[in-house]
Amino acid sequence: MSSWFEASYSPGTRLSLRITRWLCTRRSPYQTIDIFDTDDFGRVLALDGVINVTERDEFIYHEMLTHVPLFVHPRPGRVLVIGGGDGGTVREVLKHPCVEKVLLVEIDREVVAASREYLPALSCALGDPRVDIRYEDAVRFIARPDQAFDIIIIDSTDPAGPGAGLFTADFYRNCRAALAPGGILTAQSESPFFDAATVGQIYAAAGRVFGRPRMYTAFVPSYVSGVWSFLFCADHCNPAADFQSERYQACAAAFRYYSDAMHAAAFALPPWIKHQCAV
Amino acid sequence: MSSWFEASYSPGTRLSLRITRWLCTRRSPYQTIDIFDTDDFGRVLALDGVINVTERDEFIYHEMLTHVPLFVHPRPGRVLVIGGGDGGTVREVLKHPCVEKVLLVEIDREVVAASREYLPALSCALGDPRVDIRYEDAVRFIARPDQAFDIIIIDSTDPAGPGAGLFTADFYRNCRAALAPGGILTAQSESPFFDAATVGQIYAAAGRVFGRPRMYTAFVPSYVSGVWSFLFCADHCNPAADFQSERYQACAAAFRYYSDAMHAAAFALPPWIKHQCAV
Repeated sequence: MSSWFEASYSPGTRLSLRITRWLCTRRSPYQTIDIFDTDDFGRVLALDGVINVTERDEFIYHEMLTHVPLFVHPRPGRVLVIGGGDGGTVREVLKHPCVEKVLLVEIDREVVAASREYLPALSCALGDPRVDIRYEDAVRFIARPDQAFDIIIIDSTDPAGPGAGLFTADFYRNCRAALAPGGILTAQSESPFFDAATVGQIYAAAGRVFGRPRMYTAFVPSYVSGVWSFLFCADHCNPAADFQSERYQACAAAFRYYSDAMHAAAFALPPWIKHQCAV
Repeated sequence: MSSWFEASYSPGTRLSLRITRWLCTRRSPYQTIDIFDTDDFGRVLALDGVINVTERDEFIYHEMLTHVPLFVHPRPGRVLVIGGGDGGTVREVLKHPCVEKVLLVEIDREVVAASREYLPALSCALGDPRVDIRYEDAVRFIARPDQAFDIIIIDSTDPAGPGAGLFTADFYRNCRAALAPGGILTAQSESPFFDAATVGQIYAAAGRVFGRPRMYTAFVPSYVSGVWSFLFCADHCNPAADFQSERYQACAAAFRYYSDAMHAAAFALPPWIKHQCAV
Protein backbone atom coordinates (compact mmCIF):
# COMPACT_ATOMS: atom_id res chain seq x y z
CA MET A 1 0.00 0.00 0.00
CA SER A 2 1.41 3.38 -0.89
CA SER A 3 0.40 6.56 0.88
CA TRP A 4 0.28 10.03 -0.57
CA PHE A 5 0.90 13.53 0.68
CA GLU A 6 -1.82 15.84 -0.57
CA ALA A 7 -1.00 19.53 -0.78
CA SER A 8 -4.12 21.63 -1.30
CA TYR A 9 -3.66 24.62 -3.57
CA SER A 10 -7.26 25.59 -2.93
CA PRO A 11 -10.45 23.68 -2.05
CA GLY A 12 -10.63 22.62 -5.70
CA THR A 13 -7.02 21.81 -6.64
CA ARG A 14 -4.35 19.68 -5.02
CA LEU A 15 -0.93 18.25 -5.79
CA SER A 16 -0.28 14.74 -4.51
CA LEU A 17 3.15 13.23 -3.97
CA ARG A 18 3.65 9.54 -3.29
CA ILE A 19 5.54 8.99 -0.06
CA THR A 20 8.31 6.44 -0.13
CA ARG A 21 9.39 6.90 3.49
CA TRP A 22 8.05 8.92 6.39
CA LEU A 23 10.79 10.50 8.48
CA CYS A 24 9.30 12.71 11.15
CA THR A 25 6.31 14.64 12.42
CA ARG A 26 6.86 17.26 15.11
CA ARG A 27 4.51 19.76 16.64
CA SER A 28 6.28 22.95 17.64
CA PRO A 29 4.54 25.85 19.41
CA TYR A 30 4.07 27.39 15.94
CA GLN A 31 3.31 24.66 13.44
CA THR A 32 3.36 20.99 12.49
CA ILE A 33 6.59 19.92 10.81
CA ASP A 34 6.53 16.88 8.51
CA ILE A 35 9.50 15.44 6.63
CA PHE A 36 9.21 12.55 4.19
CA ASP A 37 10.78 11.11 1.06
CA THR A 38 8.94 11.05 -2.27
CA ASP A 39 9.43 9.46 -5.69
CA ASP A 40 9.80 12.60 -7.73
CA PHE A 41 10.73 15.46 -5.41
CA GLY A 42 13.19 13.73 -3.10
CA ARG A 43 12.92 14.71 0.55
CA VAL A 44 10.13 17.14 1.39
CA LEU A 45 9.62 19.51 4.33
CA ALA A 46 5.98 20.47 4.90
CA LEU A 47 4.78 23.03 7.45
CA ASP A 48 1.14 22.80 8.50
CA GLY A 49 0.46 20.60 5.47
CA VAL A 50 1.96 23.05 2.96
CA ILE A 51 5.03 22.03 0.95
CA ASN A 52 7.83 24.30 2.16
CA VAL A 53 10.84 22.90 0.35
CA THR A 54 11.65 19.81 -1.67
CA GLU A 55 15.19 18.62 -2.30
CA ARG A 56 14.43 18.40 -6.01
CA ASP A 57 13.50 21.99 -6.74
CA GLU A 58 14.52 24.04 -3.67
CA PHE A 59 17.54 25.33 -5.58
CA ILE A 60 15.26 27.36 -7.84
CA TYR A 61 13.48 29.16 -5.01
CA HIS A 62 16.59 29.73 -2.89
CA GLU A 63 18.82 30.88 -5.75
CA MET A 64 16.27 33.37 -7.02
CA LEU A 65 15.36 34.73 -3.59
CA THR A 66 19.05 35.27 -2.77
CA HIS A 67 21.19 36.01 -5.80
CA VAL A 68 18.97 38.61 -7.41
CA PRO A 69 19.49 41.12 -4.57
CA LEU A 70 23.06 40.05 -3.84
CA PHE A 71 24.15 40.62 -7.44
CA VAL A 72 22.43 44.02 -7.60
CA HIS A 73 24.03 45.38 -4.41
CA PRO A 74 27.59 46.56 -5.15
CA ARG A 75 29.05 45.08 -1.96
CA PRO A 76 26.72 43.17 0.35
CA GLY A 77 28.56 42.57 3.60
CA ARG A 78 25.81 42.07 6.19
CA VAL A 79 22.72 40.03 5.39
CA LEU A 80 19.59 39.42 7.45
CA VAL A 81 17.52 36.33 6.64
CA ILE A 82 14.05 36.28 8.17
CA GLY A 83 12.48 32.83 8.42
CA GLY A 84 14.29 30.31 6.27
CA GLY A 85 15.06 27.97 9.15
CA ASP A 86 15.74 25.13 6.72
CA GLY A 87 19.02 26.87 5.87
CA GLY A 88 18.69 26.95 2.07
CA THR A 89 18.80 30.75 1.82
CA VAL A 90 21.80 31.01 4.17
CA ARG A 91 23.61 28.40 2.06
CA GLU A 92 23.10 30.55 -1.05
CA VAL A 93 24.06 33.81 0.71
CA LEU A 94 27.39 32.28 1.72
CA LYS A 95 28.29 31.61 -1.92
CA HIS A 96 29.15 35.34 -2.04
CA PRO A 97 32.68 35.77 -0.69
CA CYS A 98 32.01 39.44 0.14
CA VAL A 99 29.42 38.51 2.77
CA GLU A 100 30.88 38.96 6.26
CA LYS A 101 27.91 38.23 8.48
CA VAL A 102 24.55 36.50 8.11
CA LEU A 103 21.94 36.81 10.82
CA LEU A 104 19.11 34.27 10.64
CA VAL A 105 16.03 35.28 12.64
CA GLU A 106 13.73 32.27 12.79
CA ILE A 107 10.75 32.01 15.10
CA ASP A 108 10.71 28.22 15.25
CA ARG A 109 13.79 26.47 16.62
CA GLU A 110 12.22 23.10 15.76
CA VAL A 111 12.43 23.85 12.02
CA VAL A 112 16.16 24.42 12.30
CA ALA A 113 16.62 21.29 14.41
CA ALA A 114 14.60 19.11 12.01
CA SER A 115 16.44 20.51 9.00
CA ARG A 116 19.82 19.88 10.63
CA GLU A 117 18.76 16.30 11.25
CA TYR A 118 17.00 15.42 8.00
CA LEU A 119 17.91 18.02 5.36
CA PRO A 120 21.70 18.30 5.37
CA ALA A 121 21.78 19.58 1.77
CA LEU A 122 19.85 22.63 2.96
CA SER A 123 21.16 23.14 6.49
CA CYS A 124 24.82 22.49 5.63
CA ALA A 125 25.88 26.14 5.99
CA LEU A 126 24.13 26.92 9.28
CA GLY A 127 27.28 26.04 11.23
CA ASP A 128 29.46 28.46 9.26
CA PRO A 129 31.26 30.92 11.57
CA ARG A 130 29.77 33.87 9.67
CA VAL A 131 26.24 32.77 10.65
CA ASP A 132 24.36 33.79 13.80
CA ILE A 133 20.94 32.38 14.56
CA ARG A 134 18.38 34.04 16.79
CA TYR A 135 15.17 32.22 17.65
CA GLU A 136 12.85 35.16 17.83
CA ASP A 137 9.74 36.62 16.21
CA ALA A 138 11.12 38.76 13.37
CA VAL A 139 8.29 41.26 13.88
CA ARG A 140 9.68 41.98 17.32
CA PHE A 141 13.33 41.84 16.23
CA ILE A 142 12.93 44.27 13.36
CA ALA A 143 11.16 46.85 15.54
CA ARG A 144 14.44 47.39 17.44
CA PRO A 145 17.30 46.07 15.32
CA ASP A 146 20.75 46.40 16.87
CA GLN A 147 22.58 46.71 13.54
CA ALA A 148 22.07 47.73 9.90
CA PHE A 149 21.94 45.34 6.96
CA ASP A 150 22.88 45.62 3.30
CA ILE A 151 20.37 42.95 2.37
CA ILE A 152 17.21 41.72 4.08
CA ILE A 153 15.70 38.49 2.70
CA ILE A 154 12.25 37.47 3.91
CA ASP A 155 12.03 33.71 3.44
CA SER A 156 8.65 33.23 5.07
CA THR A 157 5.75 30.82 5.03
CA ASP A 158 2.43 31.95 3.54
CA PRO A 159 0.59 34.95 5.01
CA ALA A 160 -1.63 32.54 6.95
CA GLY A 161 0.04 31.10 10.05
CA PRO A 162 3.21 32.27 11.79
CA GLY A 163 4.29 34.29 8.74
CA ALA A 164 1.26 36.65 8.72
CA GLY A 165 3.04 39.60 10.37
CA LEU A 166 5.80 39.54 7.74
CA PHE A 167 3.60 40.93 4.95
CA THR A 168 2.42 44.23 6.46
CA ALA A 169 3.39 47.83 5.67
CA ASP A 170 4.48 48.25 9.32
CA PHE A 171 6.87 45.36 8.96
CA TYR A 172 8.26 46.64 5.67
CA ARG A 173 8.72 50.09 7.27
CA ASN A 174 10.81 48.62 10.07
CA CYS A 175 12.81 46.62 7.54
CA ARG A 176 13.51 49.76 5.55
CA ALA A 177 14.75 51.49 8.69
CA ALA A 178 17.09 48.54 9.33
CA LEU A 179 18.66 48.77 5.86
CA ALA A 180 22.02 50.49 5.46
CA PRO A 181 22.17 53.14 2.67
CA GLY A 182 21.78 51.38 -0.68
CA GLY A 183 20.19 48.39 1.02
CA ILE A 184 17.85 45.95 -0.71
CA LEU A 185 14.95 43.84 0.56
CA THR A 186 13.58 40.74 -1.16
CA ALA A 187 10.76 38.47 -0.09
CA GLN A 188 8.86 35.51 -1.40
CA SER A 189 5.49 36.92 -2.45
CA GLU A 190 3.20 33.98 -3.28
CA SER A 191 1.61 32.70 -6.48
CA PRO A 192 0.34 35.34 -8.90
CA PHE A 193 -1.75 32.68 -10.62
CA PHE A 194 -3.66 31.25 -7.68
CA ASP A 195 -3.77 34.19 -5.34
CA ALA A 196 -3.52 37.44 -7.25
CA ALA A 197 -5.49 39.32 -4.57
CA THR A 198 -2.98 38.41 -1.84
CA VAL A 199 -0.09 39.24 -4.13
CA GLY A 200 -1.66 42.59 -4.92
CA GLN A 201 -1.97 43.35 -1.20
CA ILE A 202 1.69 42.50 -0.59
CA TYR A 203 2.85 44.90 -3.33
CA ALA A 204 0.45 47.60 -2.15
CA ALA A 205 1.83 47.31 1.41
CA ALA A 206 5.43 47.40 0.16
CA GLY A 207 4.56 50.33 -2.10
CA ARG A 208 3.49 52.41 0.89
CA VAL A 209 7.05 52.10 2.23
CA PHE A 210 9.36 51.76 -0.77
CA GLY A 211 9.01 53.92 -3.85
CA ARG A 212 8.32 51.26 -6.41
CA PRO A 213 8.35 47.61 -5.41
CA ARG A 214 9.33 45.37 -8.28
CA MET A 215 8.22 41.81 -8.96
CA TYR A 216 10.21 39.01 -10.47
CA THR A 217 9.21 35.41 -10.99
CA ALA A 218 10.58 31.89 -11.24
CA PHE A 219 8.99 28.54 -11.79
CA VAL A 220 8.94 26.28 -8.74
CA PRO A 221 7.24 23.00 -9.72
CA SER A 222 6.37 21.94 -6.16
CA TYR A 223 4.69 25.25 -5.27
CA VAL A 224 1.10 26.20 -5.97
CA SER A 225 0.62 26.68 -9.75
CA GLY A 226 4.34 26.22 -10.49
CA VAL A 227 4.99 29.94 -10.84
CA TRP A 228 6.23 31.97 -7.90
CA SER A 229 6.71 35.69 -7.36
CA PHE A 230 9.40 37.57 -5.47
CA LEU A 231 9.27 41.11 -4.13
CA PHE A 232 12.25 43.40 -4.73
CA CYS A 233 12.45 46.70 -2.85
CA ALA A 234 15.21 49.29 -2.89
CA ASP A 235 15.31 53.04 -2.91
CA HIS A 236 17.57 53.62 -5.88
CA CYS A 237 18.34 50.95 -8.43
CA ASN A 238 17.07 49.27 -11.54
CA PRO A 239 17.21 45.62 -10.49
CA ALA A 240 16.88 44.20 -14.00
CA ALA A 241 19.74 46.32 -15.33
CA ASP A 242 22.04 46.98 -12.36
CA PHE A 243 24.09 43.84 -12.18
CA GLN A 244 27.49 43.08 -10.71
CA SER A 245 28.79 41.21 -13.69
CA GLU A 246 32.34 40.74 -12.46
CA ARG A 247 31.32 39.20 -9.16
CA TYR A 248 28.82 36.98 -10.97
CA GLN A 249 31.37 35.68 -13.46
CA ALA A 250 33.64 34.66 -10.59
CA CYS A 251 31.09 32.19 -9.21
CA ALA A 252 28.64 31.53 -12.08
CA ALA A 253 29.32 27.80 -11.99
CA ALA A 254 27.78 27.59 -8.51
CA PHE A 255 24.24 28.15 -9.76
CA ARG A 256 21.74 25.82 -11.41
CA TYR A 257 18.75 28.11 -12.11
CA TYR A 258 20.20 31.57 -11.63
CA SER A 259 22.34 33.22 -14.31
CA ASP A 260 22.94 36.71 -15.68
CA ALA A 261 20.35 36.03 -18.38
CA MET A 262 17.82 34.60 -15.91
CA HIS A 263 18.34 37.63 -13.65
CA ALA A 264 17.21 40.02 -16.37
CA ALA A 265 14.51 37.70 -17.74
CA ALA A 266 12.89 37.18 -14.34
CA PHE A 267 11.77 40.82 -14.25
CA ALA A 268 9.79 40.49 -17.49
CA LEU A 269 6.17 40.06 -16.41
CA PRO A 270 3.21 38.89 -18.47
CA PRO A 271 0.68 41.71 -18.99
CA TRP A 272 -1.89 39.61 -17.17
CA ILE A 273 0.18 39.48 -13.95
CA LYS A 274 0.88 43.22 -14.09
CA HIS A 275 -2.82 43.85 -14.46
CA GLN A 276 -4.13 41.34 -11.90
CA CYS A 277 -1.59 42.14 -9.21
CA ALA A 278 -1.31 45.86 -10.01
CA VAL A 279 2.48 45.78 -10.28
CA MET B 1 -20.21 14.09 -3.01
CA SER B 2 -17.61 15.79 -5.14
CA SER B 3 -15.54 13.94 -7.71
CA TRP B 4 -12.03 14.76 -8.83
CA PHE B 5 -10.09 14.50 -12.06
CA GLU B 6 -6.64 13.12 -11.35
CA ALA B 7 -3.93 13.92 -13.87
CA SER B 8 -0.86 11.76 -13.32
CA TYR B 9 2.45 13.54 -13.91
CA SER B 10 4.25 10.30 -13.20
CA PRO B 11 3.52 7.23 -11.05
CA GLY B 12 4.49 9.31 -8.01
CA THR B 13 2.95 12.73 -8.66
CA ARG B 14 -0.52 13.86 -9.66
CA LEU B 15 -2.56 17.03 -9.94
CA SER B 16 -6.21 16.74 -8.93
CA LEU B 17 -8.96 19.13 -10.01
CA ARG B 18 -12.40 19.08 -8.42
CA ILE B 19 -15.08 18.60 -11.05
CA THR B 20 -18.11 20.83 -10.78
CA ARG B 21 -19.90 19.48 -13.87
CA TRP B 22 -19.16 16.67 -16.29
CA LEU B 23 -19.96 17.58 -19.88
CA CYS B 24 -18.90 14.80 -22.21
CA THR B 25 -16.88 11.66 -22.74
CA ARG B 26 -16.29 10.48 -26.30
CA ARG B 27 -14.16 7.70 -27.65
CA SER B 28 -12.76 8.52 -31.08
CA PRO B 29 -10.67 6.09 -33.14
CA TYR B 30 -7.61 7.82 -31.65
CA GLN B 31 -8.28 8.72 -28.05
CA THR B 32 -10.76 9.31 -25.24
CA ILE B 33 -12.01 12.89 -25.08
CA ASP B 34 -13.29 14.23 -21.74
CA ILE B 35 -14.65 17.70 -21.11
CA PHE B 36 -15.67 18.95 -17.66
CA ASP B 37 -15.90 22.09 -15.56
CA THR B 38 -13.67 22.67 -12.53
CA ASP B 39 -13.46 25.12 -9.65
CA ASP B 40 -10.13 26.68 -10.43
CA PHE B 41 -9.33 26.02 -14.10
CA GLY B 42 -12.72 26.55 -15.69
CA ARG B 43 -13.59 24.13 -18.46
CA VAL B 44 -11.03 21.41 -19.12
CA LEU B 45 -10.37 19.24 -22.18
CA ALA B 46 -8.52 16.00 -21.38
CA LEU B 47 -7.25 13.52 -23.97
CA ASP B 48 -6.58 9.99 -22.74
CA GLY B 49 -6.62 11.28 -19.17
CA VAL B 50 -4.03 14.02 -19.79
CA ILE B 51 -5.02 17.67 -19.38
CA ASN B 52 -4.86 19.16 -22.86
CA VAL B 53 -6.23 22.65 -22.32
CA THR B 54 -8.01 24.50 -19.54
CA GLU B 55 -9.98 27.69 -20.11
CA ARG B 56 -8.09 29.35 -17.27
CA ASP B 57 -4.54 29.07 -18.55
CA GLU B 58 -4.76 28.03 -22.23
CA PHE B 59 -3.95 31.58 -23.26
CA ILE B 60 -0.40 31.16 -21.97
CA TYR B 61 0.34 28.04 -23.99
CA HIS B 62 -1.38 29.21 -27.17
CA GLU B 63 0.05 32.73 -27.14
CA MET B 64 3.60 31.48 -26.63
CA LEU B 65 3.37 28.69 -29.20
CA THR B 66 2.03 31.12 -31.80
CA HIS B 67 3.27 34.67 -31.37
CA VAL B 68 6.94 33.89 -30.86
CA PRO B 69 7.38 32.60 -34.45
CA LEU B 70 4.85 34.99 -35.97
CA PHE B 71 6.62 38.04 -34.57
CA VAL B 72 10.02 36.80 -35.71
CA HIS B 73 8.98 36.14 -39.33
CA PRO B 74 8.95 39.40 -41.29
CA ARG B 75 5.69 38.63 -43.08
CA PRO B 76 3.94 35.36 -42.28
CA GLY B 77 1.20 34.84 -44.85
CA ARG B 78 0.60 31.08 -44.85
CA VAL B 79 0.51 29.11 -41.62
CA LEU B 80 0.22 25.36 -41.06
CA VAL B 81 -1.08 24.19 -37.67
CA ILE B 82 -0.56 20.50 -36.94
CA GLY B 83 -2.82 19.09 -34.24
CA GLY B 84 -4.47 21.82 -32.21
CA GLY B 85 -8.00 20.67 -32.97
CA ASP B 86 -9.34 22.68 -30.04
CA GLY B 87 -8.77 25.80 -32.14
CA GLY B 88 -6.75 27.85 -29.64
CA THR B 89 -3.68 28.11 -31.83
CA VAL B 90 -5.70 29.07 -34.92
CA ARG B 91 -7.43 31.77 -32.87
CA GLU B 92 -4.05 33.26 -31.97
CA VAL B 93 -2.66 32.98 -35.53
CA LEU B 94 -5.61 35.00 -36.84
CA LYS B 95 -4.74 37.91 -34.56
CA HIS B 96 -2.05 38.70 -37.17
CA PRO B 97 -3.66 40.69 -39.99
CA CYS B 98 -0.89 39.68 -42.42
CA VAL B 99 -1.93 36.00 -42.27
CA GLU B 100 -3.80 35.06 -45.44
CA LYS B 101 -4.33 31.34 -44.98
CA VAL B 102 -4.27 28.88 -42.08
CA LEU B 103 -4.35 25.17 -42.73
CA LEU B 104 -5.23 23.00 -39.72
CA VAL B 105 -4.22 19.36 -40.11
CA GLU B 106 -5.82 17.42 -37.27
CA ILE B 107 -6.05 13.65 -37.15
CA ASP B 108 -9.10 13.51 -34.92
CA ARG B 109 -12.29 15.11 -36.18
CA GLU B 110 -13.97 14.38 -32.84
CA VAL B 111 -11.65 16.82 -31.04
CA VAL B 112 -12.75 19.62 -33.36
CA ALA B 113 -16.41 18.66 -33.00
CA ALA B 114 -16.23 18.52 -29.19
CA SER B 115 -14.35 21.81 -29.03
CA ARG B 116 -16.89 23.51 -31.28
CA GLU B 117 -19.65 22.28 -29.00
CA TYR B 118 -18.12 22.83 -25.57
CA LEU B 119 -15.14 25.18 -25.92
CA PRO B 120 -16.34 28.18 -27.91
CA ALA B 121 -13.63 30.45 -26.45
CA LEU B 122 -11.05 28.21 -28.13
CA SER B 123 -12.82 27.10 -31.31
CA CYS B 124 -14.29 30.53 -32.11
CA ALA B 125 -11.97 31.18 -35.08
CA LEU B 126 -12.28 27.78 -36.79
CA GLY B 127 -15.10 29.08 -38.99
CA ASP B 128 -13.04 32.03 -40.27
CA PRO B 129 -12.88 32.07 -44.09
CA ARG B 130 -9.05 32.07 -43.96
CA VAL B 131 -9.08 28.66 -42.22
CA ASP B 132 -9.08 25.26 -43.93
CA ILE B 133 -9.30 22.07 -41.92
CA ARG B 134 -8.08 18.68 -43.11
CA TYR B 135 -8.74 15.61 -41.02
CA GLU B 136 -5.63 13.67 -41.79
CA ASP B 137 -2.54 12.20 -40.16
CA ALA B 138 0.01 15.03 -40.31
CA VAL B 139 2.81 12.50 -40.80
CA ARG B 140 1.22 11.50 -44.10
CA PHE B 141 0.25 15.05 -45.07
CA ILE B 142 3.71 16.51 -44.54
CA ALA B 143 5.37 13.80 -46.64
CA ARG B 144 3.66 15.23 -49.74
CA PRO B 145 2.56 18.79 -48.97
CA ASP B 146 0.78 20.61 -51.80
CA GLN B 147 1.95 24.07 -50.77
CA ALA B 148 4.70 25.89 -48.84
CA PHE B 149 4.26 27.57 -45.48
CA ASP B 150 5.89 30.53 -43.79
CA ILE B 151 5.18 29.09 -40.35
CA ILE B 152 4.56 25.54 -39.16
CA ILE B 153 3.21 25.16 -35.62
CA ILE B 154 3.10 21.68 -34.09
CA ASP B 155 0.44 21.76 -31.40
CA SER B 156 0.53 18.08 -30.52
CA THR B 157 -0.28 15.80 -27.64
CA ASP B 158 2.57 14.06 -25.78
CA PRO B 159 4.94 11.72 -27.66
CA ALA B 160 2.91 8.79 -26.34
CA GLY B 161 -0.34 8.19 -28.25
CA PRO B 162 -1.43 9.67 -31.59
CA GLY B 163 1.24 12.40 -31.40
CA ALA B 164 4.25 10.02 -31.36
CA GLY B 165 5.12 10.45 -35.05
CA LEU B 166 5.31 14.23 -34.68
CA PHE B 167 8.58 14.19 -32.71
CA THR B 168 10.92 12.36 -35.11
CA ALA B 169 13.79 13.63 -37.27
CA ASP B 170 11.96 12.28 -40.35
CA PHE B 171 8.95 14.37 -39.51
CA TYR B 172 11.03 17.50 -38.88
CA ARG B 173 12.83 16.89 -42.20
CA ASN B 174 9.54 16.85 -44.07
CA CYS B 175 8.41 19.96 -42.23
CA ARG B 176 11.60 21.75 -43.21
CA ALA B 177 11.00 20.84 -46.84
CA ALA B 178 7.49 22.28 -46.57
CA LEU B 179 8.73 25.65 -45.27
CA ALA B 180 9.05 28.56 -47.68
CA PRO B 181 12.42 30.39 -47.62
CA GLY B 182 12.79 32.11 -44.24
CA GLY B 183 10.18 29.81 -42.74
CA ILE B 184 9.96 28.98 -39.03
CA LEU B 185 8.77 25.89 -37.15
CA THR B 186 7.65 25.84 -33.52
CA ALA B 187 6.38 22.93 -31.47
CA GLN B 188 5.37 22.20 -27.91
CA SER B 189 8.25 20.18 -26.50
CA GLU B 190 7.17 18.84 -23.09
CA SER B 191 8.29 19.52 -19.51
CA PRO B 192 12.02 19.99 -18.98
CA PHE B 193 11.51 19.38 -15.28
CA PHE B 194 9.68 16.07 -15.35
CA ASP B 195 10.93 14.57 -18.56
CA ALA B 196 14.34 15.94 -19.44
CA ALA B 197 15.27 12.75 -21.34
CA THR B 198 12.31 13.07 -23.71
CA VAL B 199 12.98 16.77 -24.16
CA GLY B 200 16.60 16.03 -24.95
CA GLN B 201 15.53 13.51 -27.60
CA ILE B 202 13.20 16.04 -29.23
CA TYR B 203 15.99 18.64 -29.53
CA ALA B 204 18.46 16.04 -30.76
CA ALA B 205 16.00 14.98 -33.49
CA ALA B 206 15.34 18.58 -34.49
CA GLY B 207 19.06 19.29 -34.43
CA ARG B 208 19.68 16.63 -37.07
CA VAL B 209 17.46 18.64 -39.45
CA PHE B 210 17.77 22.29 -38.45
CA GLY B 211 21.09 23.90 -37.64
CA ARG B 212 20.48 24.90 -34.08
CA PRO B 213 17.09 24.30 -32.51
CA ARG B 214 16.33 26.81 -29.79
CA MET B 215 14.23 26.32 -26.67
CA TYR B 216 12.00 28.82 -24.97
CA THR B 217 9.76 28.32 -21.96
CA ALA B 218 6.57 29.54 -20.33
CA PHE B 219 4.77 28.59 -17.18
CA VAL B 220 1.54 26.69 -17.71
CA PRO B 221 0.05 25.91 -14.28
CA SER B 222 -2.19 23.06 -15.47
CA TYR B 223 0.64 21.21 -17.24
CA VAL B 224 3.06 18.78 -15.64
CA SER B 225 5.44 20.71 -13.32
CA GLY B 226 4.05 24.10 -14.35
CA VAL B 227 6.92 24.84 -16.72
CA TRP B 228 6.66 24.05 -20.39
CA SER B 229 9.17 24.13 -23.22
CA PHE B 230 8.77 25.13 -26.86
CA LEU B 231 10.98 24.20 -29.80
CA PHE B 232 11.96 26.98 -32.24
CA CYS B 233 13.61 25.99 -35.54
CA ALA B 234 14.66 28.22 -38.41
CA ASP B 235 17.60 28.35 -40.73
CA HIS B 236 18.62 31.95 -40.29
CA CYS B 237 17.44 34.10 -37.44
CA ASN B 238 18.09 34.97 -33.83
CA PRO B 239 14.64 34.42 -32.35
CA ALA B 240 15.31 36.29 -29.11
CA ALA B 241 16.56 39.38 -30.93
CA ASP B 242 14.80 39.40 -34.31
CA PHE B 243 11.47 40.90 -33.51
CA GLN B 244 8.88 42.68 -35.61
CA SER B 245 8.35 45.53 -33.21
CA GLU B 246 6.06 47.61 -35.40
CA ARG B 247 3.63 44.77 -36.06
CA TYR B 248 3.67 43.88 -32.37
CA GLN B 249 2.88 47.41 -31.24
CA ALA B 250 -0.15 47.46 -33.51
CA CYS B 251 -1.82 44.59 -31.65
CA ALA B 252 -0.04 44.40 -28.26
CA ALA B 253 -3.30 44.85 -26.38
CA ALA B 254 -4.57 41.51 -27.71
CA PHE B 255 -2.19 39.46 -25.55
CA ARG B 256 -2.32 38.48 -21.89
CA TYR B 257 0.94 36.54 -21.41
CA TYR B 258 2.93 37.42 -24.51
CA SER B 259 4.72 40.75 -24.86
CA ASP B 260 7.93 42.07 -26.40
CA ALA B 261 9.64 41.67 -23.04
CA MET B 262 8.27 38.14 -22.51
CA HIS B 263 9.38 37.19 -26.03
CA ALA B 264 13.01 37.97 -25.22
CA ALA B 265 12.84 36.65 -21.65
CA ALA B 266 11.39 33.28 -22.70
CA PHE B 267 14.67 32.36 -24.44
CA ALA B 268 16.69 32.76 -21.23
CA LEU B 269 17.19 29.23 -19.93
CA PRO B 270 18.35 28.13 -16.48
CA PRO B 271 21.79 26.45 -16.66
CA TRP B 272 20.21 23.30 -15.28
CA ILE B 273 17.79 22.99 -18.24
CA LYS B 274 20.56 23.63 -20.76
CA HIS B 275 22.61 20.92 -19.14
CA GLN B 276 19.88 18.31 -18.58
CA CYS B 277 18.27 18.69 -22.00
CA ALA B 278 21.51 19.41 -23.88
CA VAL B 279 20.14 22.59 -25.50
